[in-house]
Amino acid sequence: MMVYDVVVVGGGPSGLSSAICSLRSRLKTLLIEKKCCGGHLLMINRLENYPGFNEGVSGFDFTVKLEKQVKNFGGEVVYDEVLDMKWSFIKKIITENATYEAKTVVIASGTHLKEMNIPGELKFRGGGVSYCAACDAPFYEDKDILVVGGGNSALQEAIYLSKFAKNINIVNRRSKLIATGILQERLASCRNISVLYDTILKEISGEKSVESVTVTNLKTNQNYQLKVSGVFIFIGLLPNSSFFSDIILDKSGYVITDENMNTSVSGVFACGDIRKKQLRQVITAVSDGAQASSSIQHYLENI
Amino acid sequence: MMVYDVVVVGGGPSGLSSAICSLRSRLKTLLIEKKCCGGHLLMINRLENYPGFNEGVSGFDFTVKLEKQVKNFGGEVVYDEVLDMKWSFIKKIITENATYEAKTVVIASGTHLKEMNIPGELKFRGGGVSYCAACDAPFYEDKDILVVGGGNSALQEAIYLSKFAKNINIVNRRSKLIATGILQERLASCRNISVLYDTILKEISGEKSVESVTVTNLKTNQNYQLKVSGVFIFIGLLPNSSFFSDIILDKSGYVITDENMNTSVSGVFACGDIRKKQLRQVITAVSDGAQASSSIQHYLENI
Repeated sequence: MMVYDVVVVGGGPSGLSSAICSLRSRLKTLLIEKKCCGGHLLMINRLENYPGFNEGVSGFDFTVKLEKQVKNFGGEVVYDEVLDMKWSFIKKIITENATYEAKTVVIASGTHLKEMNIPGELKFRGGGVSYCAACDAPFYEDKDILVVGGGNSALQEAIYLSKFAKNINIVNRRSKLIATGILQERLASCRNISVLYDTILKEISGEKSVESVTVTNLKTNQNYQLKVSGVFIFIGLLPNSSFFSDIILDKSGYVITDENMNTSVSGVFACGDIRKKQLRQVITAVSDGAQASSSIQHYLENI
Repeated sequence: MMVYDVVVVGGGPSGLSSAICSLRSRLKTLLIEKKCCGGHLLMINRLENYPGFNEGVSGFDFTVKLEKQVKNFGGEVVYDEVLDMKWSFIKKIITENATYEAKTVVIASGTHLKEMNIPGELKFRGGGVSYCAACDAPFYEDKDILVVGGGNSALQEAIYLSKFAKNINIVNRRSKLIATGILQERLASCRNISVLYDTILKEISGEKSVESVTVTNLKTNQNYQLKVSGVFIFIGLLPNSSFFSDIILDKSGYVITDENMNTSVSGVFACGDIRKKQLRQVITAVSDGAQASSSIQHYLENI
């Protein structure tokens, strides 16, 4: 059986970047992706803070560019779900359809969007409850919607949605937004967006589709009913770290690495959003991938 | 006197990236650059491992893109040399022509190319001795040249020079090259490049311009004379950290930071090649810049 120099698990920006750098170093590299490459990139309508794209670029177009770079360097991509991984000198990566062997593994499995676990959320998912503005905005043309969250994602998505929806209320549990300055400015210039501070979403209601929501003001403890046709939830991320074991994670489930992307297991590296780190952006994910690949080269030269 | 939120010292990729992110967060940002923006980018003929540019991009064009991003976000750039910096709650940045004040400082001063300090190097600088293939290659059309070094820079530059020069000898002090795999393969396919292993350059000689070099084989201790018209030196980098004090550096003069770019002084950050770190690439420099900006926002919110 062929033993790869490196198997990269996950085809988001950090996994693709790591594969590009490993291929360029002529390492025998396999990238395994569960669905389609891009990860959270695919939910970014316009990426404008990635240095080098002064006119911005859509997350989709950027993904295509990264995939082309992988192919330019002769990369091999398999679409399959990793179910388990076994650590020893030669690592085993067990997928739904096969088992792969590798000298090193890069965990770039990223995160998934956090759910609220409130009444109505599950019932209306895909029919009024959404986690992706770029995917679902056109369904809410001229309708009233609710956005949940106060961070960069929530504001970015609300601003994008404001071009479609009639009116948008943002439900923010804090008394101020935590999103970056330029987004707050842009929000202020959107006439059809209002922010409800110190407020949480309690329940999503309706017959066949979403018709209203119940929100609670945390200061007065009063409940309000709002008529909306859609609810967009952007309240944070959770790490995709449940499909492997025997790697040290932090309390929230993120993989602990040093700044060279080494995990607690020799020859196993992690990069991108799955890492315990301060700043989760496309640019830091991509840089992590390059660093992981560099560390792999050092590792392979010394075993 | 105006107090900036952040003054960025150095207009290479990490400084520009840091400025882009700070401006996007609506921080009052000033970037000070000594000569012209781009730093070592300007010496890169073709950047092909920066994720997102699947067809590669010249270092010059990439610099222009970053500068445009800075301008898109309303950035202010001053061309002046920083002579000293004073650390207190409000930091003072003293240049040749002015003194600036800032709540935070980003040191992104990068590195400069190491010199060999051998006879003839200084005498022929700019007239046969070069540290930049992209700058000087056309002068050596159809001539014999010597390249010193065995790392990525040396090989990249030799491969680039091979399209101009007649014959190239690479002088490499080790018994193997340390450059990445793909570059070694490309080198092997260049018919007019040979590598002299275990060999060092001792002296550069000539009347008005370079005519020959003396090299020494370290295993036999024998000296050889080679006729060449040019010498390109790529033996590594030295940190630009002599213009400030009271920041903890490592033995080589690189600034020690944590992975969030905090230096030993509160409110002073460092990013890019000036940092003590494993991998110095464009992508890691740019990511460092974004991380520095994020750390600055946290710092400013908590003072």
